[in-house]
Amino acid sequence: MSYLQAIFAPRAVAVIGATSRPASVGRAVFANILGHGYAGVAYPVNPRAASIMSVKAYPSVRDIPDAVDLAIVIVPRDTVPRILEECGETGVKAAIVITAGFKELGGEGAVHEQQVLEAARRGGLRLLGPNCLGVINTDPQVSLNGSFAGVMPLPGNVALVSQSGAVGTAALEYAHGERVGLSKFVSVGNKADLNENDFLAYLKDDPLTGVILFYLEDLADPSRFFQLAREVGEQEQKKPILAIKSGRTAAGARAASSHTGALAGSDEAYDALFAQCGVLRVESLEELFDHAVAFAWQPLPQGNRVAVVTNAGGLGIMTTDAAERYGLTMASLAQATMEKLAQGLPPAASVRNPVDVLGDAREDRYGLALEAVLADPGVDGVIVISTPQLMTDLKAVAAAVAETSSRFDKPVLVCQMALENIEAPLAILTQARIPHYHFPEEAARSLAAMARYALSVGGPAYDVKRFADVDKAAVARVLAGARAEKRRYLLEPEAHEIFRAYGFPTLPFRWVKSAGEAAQAAAELGFPAVLKVVSPDVIHKIDIGGVKLSLHHPGEVEAAYRELREAVAAAQPEARWAGALVQKMAPPGRETILGMSRDPLFGPLLMFGLGGTYVEIFKDVIFRVAPISEEWAHRMIRDLKGYPALAGYRGQPPADLEAAAQCLERLSQLVLDFPDFQEMDLNPLVIFNEGQGAAVLDARIFLREEV
Amino acid sequence: MSYLQAIFAPRAVAVIGATSRPASVGRAVFANILGHGYAGVAYPVNPRAASIMSVKAYPSVRDIPDAVDLAIVIVPRDTVPRILEECGETGVKAAIVITAGFKELGGEGAVHEQQVLEAARRGGLRLLGPNCLGVINTDPQVSLNGSFAGVMPLPGNVALVSQSGAVGTAALEYAHGERVGLSKFVSVGNKADLNENDFLAYLKDDPLTGVILFYLEDLADPSRFFQLAREVGEQEQKKPILAIKSGRTAAGARAASSHTGALAGSDEAYDALFAQCGVLRVESLEELFDHAVAFAWQPLPQGNRVAVVTNAGGLGIMTTDAAERYGLTMASLAQATMEKLAQGLPPAASVRNPVDVLGDAREDRYGLALEAVLADPGVDGVIVISTPQLMTDLKAVAAAVAETSSRFDKPVLVCQMALENIEAPLAILTQARIPHYHFPEEAARSLAAMARYALSVGGPAYDVKRFADVDKAAVARVLAGARAEKRRYLLEPEAHEIFRAYGFPTLPFRWVKSAGEAAQAAAELGFPAVLKVVSPDVIHKIDIGGVKLSLHHPGEVEAAYRELREAVAAAQPEARWAGALVQKMAPPGRETILGMSRDPLFGPLLMFGLGGTYVEIFKDVIFRVAPISEEWAHRMIRDLKGYPALAGYRGQPPADLEAAAQCLERLSQLVLDFPDFQEMDLNPLVIFNEGQGAAVLDARIFLREEV
Repeated sequence: MSYLQAIFAPRAVAVIGATSRPASVGRAVFANILGHGYAGVAYPVNPRAASIMSVKAYPSVRDIPDAVDLAIVIVPRDTVPRILEECGETGVKAAIVITAGFKELGGEGAVHEQQVLEAARRGGLRLLGPNCLGVINTDPQVSLNGSFAGVMPLPGNVALVSQSGAVGTAALEYAHGERVGLSKFVSVGNKADLNENDFLAYLKDDPLTGVILFYLEDLADPSRFFQLAREVGEQEQKKPILAIKSGRTAAGARAASSHTGALAGSDEAYDALFAQCGVLRVESLEELFDHAVAFAWQPLPQGNRVAVVTNAGGLGIMTTDAAERYGLTMASLAQATMEKLAQGLPPAASVRNPVDVLGDAREDRYGLALEAVLADPGVDGVIVISTPQLMTDLKAVAAAVAETSSRFDKPVLVCQMALENIEAPLAILTQARIPHYHFPEEAARSLAAMARYALSVGGPAYDVKRFADVDKAAVARVLAGARAEKRRYLLEPEAHEIFRAYGFPTLPFRWVKSAGEAAQAAAELGFPAVLKVVSPDVIHKIDIGGVKLSLHHPGEVEAAYRELREAVAAAQPEARWAGALVQKMAPPGRETILGMSRDPLFGPLLMFGLGGTYVEIFKDVIFRVAPISEEWAHRMIRDLKGYPALAGYRGQPPADLEAAAQCLERLSQLVLDFPDFQEMDLNPLVIFNEGQGAAVLDARIFLREEV
Repeated sequence: MSYLQAIFAPRAVAVIGATSRPASVGRAVFANILGHGYAGVAYPVNPRAASIMSVKAYPSVRDIPDAVDLAIVIVPRDTVPRILEECGETGVKAAIVITAGFKELGGEGAVHEQQVLEAARRGGLRLLGPNCLGVINTDPQVSLNGSFAGVMPLPGNVALVSQSGAVGTAALEYAHGERVGLSKFVSVGNKADLNENDFLAYLKDDPLTGVILFYLEDLADPSRFFQLAREVGEQEQKKPILAIKSGRTAAGARAASSHTGALAGSDEAYDALFAQCGVLRVESLEELFDHAVAFAWQPLPQGNRVAVVTNAGGLGIMTTDAAERYGLTMASLAQATMEKLAQGLPPAASVRNPVDVLGDAREDRYGLALEAVLADPGVDGVIVISTPQLMTDLKAVAAAVAETSSRFDKPVLVCQMALENIEAPLAILTQARIPHYHFPEEAARSLAAMARYALSVGGPAYDVKRFADVDKAAVARVLAGARAEKRRYLLEPEAHEIFRAYGFPTLPFRWVKSAGEAAQAAAELGFPAVLKVVSPDVIHKIDIGGVKLSLHHPGEVEAAYRELREAVAAAQPEARWAGALVQKMAPPGRETILGMSRDPLFGPLLMFGLGGTYVEIFKDVIFRVAPISEEWAHRMIRDLKGYPALAGYRGQPPADLEAAAQCLERLSQLVLDFPDFQEMDLNPLVIFNEGQGAAVLDARIFLREEV
């Protein structure tokens, strides 16, 4: 028996710290096990009681005359390590430590947590928690509520993993009180040992789980999570993963030397990771469960074209508004569909989408209209609005919707816009596994989430290209040179050298140390020329007048060299002078910014966006986690709001998107090959018209303190 | 007695078409009047019954031996006109026509509706409907449910005016089933006579109404609505107005000749109008009622700084995320506040915002924490999160929150994150008029709406400047010239002439007809020069190469003139040649677009935004309805996402925002003075640095077909 089986399906459980004291956690856990039909044997352990809730108690786990798979531990903090050692000695495979007072308190608490972890390791058992709510397995073969939650969810195909006990409690109440049945519930607590990845790996193969929900405050190991989530998405039987990651705004101010670094918060990293591995990120528990029930009960749509059937015109309009707001498209009904509707509905009905069956509609009109739109090949999913009117029999309408939708393999969601006398109609819908919502916006939002998931998951495999035409040694030489001088900021010629070594479209350049050399270099490279200051101390060249553009002859170049020196001397008198960089001016193209910022947890984040004001003010950039596949490099470009500026609009030709994507992929390889890089801006990276490539015009690289 | 008093507080009501037939509207209306304690006298009118529901029936309204103020009409469509005439003859002041089958069906229906309206006019009575649900007045002095709605709302200070019967029904159910008490409910139906403006005018002065809600599908008279809503906002006792305007996406494709016209949908007009008159636009019924209860029960916040008190850390983080997403700021608690919290709470509690009173908190900790944050001058409002934990007594917590918040004049909203056993705690909160929500996002969204309203309403009066330095005659001359030639597209020199006449910062120009004239004009105006084709047939000059920039000497100008002719001949051989326009090139500045598009219902919509790609791709523009006040011209500029590009960033000086605002105000005056203008683009309008004005570089004007 694996440790995860021991947690979810133990043959025997010891509840260490079980008590009969009212309103105590130790009682709540034991009562939940007894009260919800656990199929194995539960042993209360309490040295000061003969029995707990009429069940014989044992002074210690050692005294239990049976093999115990799982221990649930609710003892005072300081005794936890000793208890775990005893568990280890008696062959317990896993422990759920519910006791709190560890890392969540900071300081001393973290030390205690480390002691608990070490005790578990010594005892050879795996650990869930500490500071957690426990686990629930609704599988009737097991029926274990090993938690102190006040409710037991109904069985269902949705699994929930929560990093917060209170959110877990709220979610269990919601699942119980409303309509989502759960397969498994896990409260991971402080994640001292087992974390979300262990449970994702388990749920991936759990036949009773069809949808996986997470409430996360952080990821213990993002790249493992990425890997597992990709595997889930690649399974034949899709299991949608939905996640709340809270703490969007928690990051606060950080010091950054580059544009990319300044924009790369940890929340961008989570957004990127979730997008790349097909996890649907949602913002609230309400959304999480609204979506979960739709994913759990209905087939995925093939596209995002929705039809609406309503008995109230105003609500049809509101649903249309909401559908388009959430990214659905109102389906254009086929001529045949509209004729079918016109034949069956009264003349005043609307046979266009939204289909209005009118206020006096009975169930027959609903059945007819729903059948007609479901049969339309241009419809991917349907939202049915049912409002109570004088003639409406909500129960009969629910039954007609249930019967009709059962004959099609398309998702149907119902908005039951009533509060009184709806238990019976809602029960019919629940029985038929048709998700029902109170407001049309909720139904539209959930159907939109299904369509987004259906269109994004799967797709080509995440194949990361490896470029062979790269010169690692050249990069290493540049890095060694900078390290020898203890520099973290690379000079621009060094940066160009690195990008050239990795096959980026750099421009020819000369690094010159005098006005004469500059003029000669410009003559060799061609006019018009550009001259830029090179100094380890000048990072914001343009701000101090350290860049001279459009130099048309050698005399101008010589003068410009002298002006640069003066500009630097005036603005930063203490700056070391390291000469200047000469290039031929590039032809005009579309300015973009490409960058990288290394996150301590996620590794290198890649950034791409339009340059100039677009990045400065509109922050129209996309982050993705390295490594990036070719497909995802292209998606990154397409996902920009300003994408039309690259794809071409109003007769402008498209930019060389192939070249842009390749720069992204090469950057991904470079920053994974060398852990030295902390932040980079290639700004601007100019993209020329289609087929004409790109050019790195300027670049900044900052190294990590040490590797 | 006014006709609105006759509708809301009639001394006697005739229900014409009352019947005893089950499940009929005629029965439902009469039963509602009888069953909900109407304080006046109700007379059923039915020629085929001696009594209706045990009340003596009259064959006609003429037979009623009493003065009837209000008739509620539920007779077959074709008899409605005759009934209204009879009502008029007997002195009835107003009629509510519930009967449907009119304009909502289109075609014939509209003719019938006109007949109904004419009958009412002949009879001298005012008309609500047809095709409406009726009215409800919960004032205990009246207690009239003159509708066929299935529920009677509790009395409260929220009024609701709905243009959709079904939305009205749903809203009444929601108000009844949940927690919002209503003062008045009006279903306006087809608005043949009375419309939302009549009721807004009434509710403005209704002492029982504190919050006004609208569900609208259109506005009958936007400028009257604007005027009334501004008056409501200027009253000492604010009455927040919240509106759903559905049909955001209904507009569909429209033909437009200008950028402004292409971007100006009717939805932009509604957004603009609501913003300018202080109406809070919301998207869903859920939001409408979530907000309504907050506005109805709690004082407005003085700002947008929120404190959160929670017994669950995870939910504190989620609330923080939601608060910032909806535009609130997490308050920084004062040192003294944090000390107070540290003294009263256990060491593991978080005394920073969000304040975590811990999972084992009882009501005393809630009381202490809430008092501390409410007393903090840096806190404008508080969200309290209460989750059920083992130790929590939700009732006692609710009572503590109610008691504490009653001692402060700041809004407190509660998120009661539980579904079981919450009737009692919720009743305590409702009794204390503390809004309560199930999810933290809902509470955050409603508090954010309150803050947005508080910060936006009131403010300086809507004073529209009138510029005296304008030359109306000059504009009229240009228009007359174009009209004489039956042209709807003005030539660029004509457009510049118009803007010059209205005091816009135009550049000197010459309209030349030969290469020689062009060169001479350029020499007079100064180099570098710009040359642009003038032709009534060339609208997209740049697209055909019809603009020549940076001409440095007379020879270049002459050559450019000839090239322009060739370019036009090549691209549009049939285009009439009307010469060229010569200007001195303007110095560089920030490019903006200013425009106008005339909406058939709203009149001129003004548009302002950043130029170039910003408008083409990002559509970062703001619309407002003319006339515009100085304050609102400045707000329009500030509300752009790209505002930092005008205000100055990274050391760039600010642009001349004063000049930009004045252009907006002058455009407002111009387009209201002359109804001839259909669409305009001033593109680019270049704004120079602060104090240096602006310049209209190019302009397009289209006239209306006829005025």
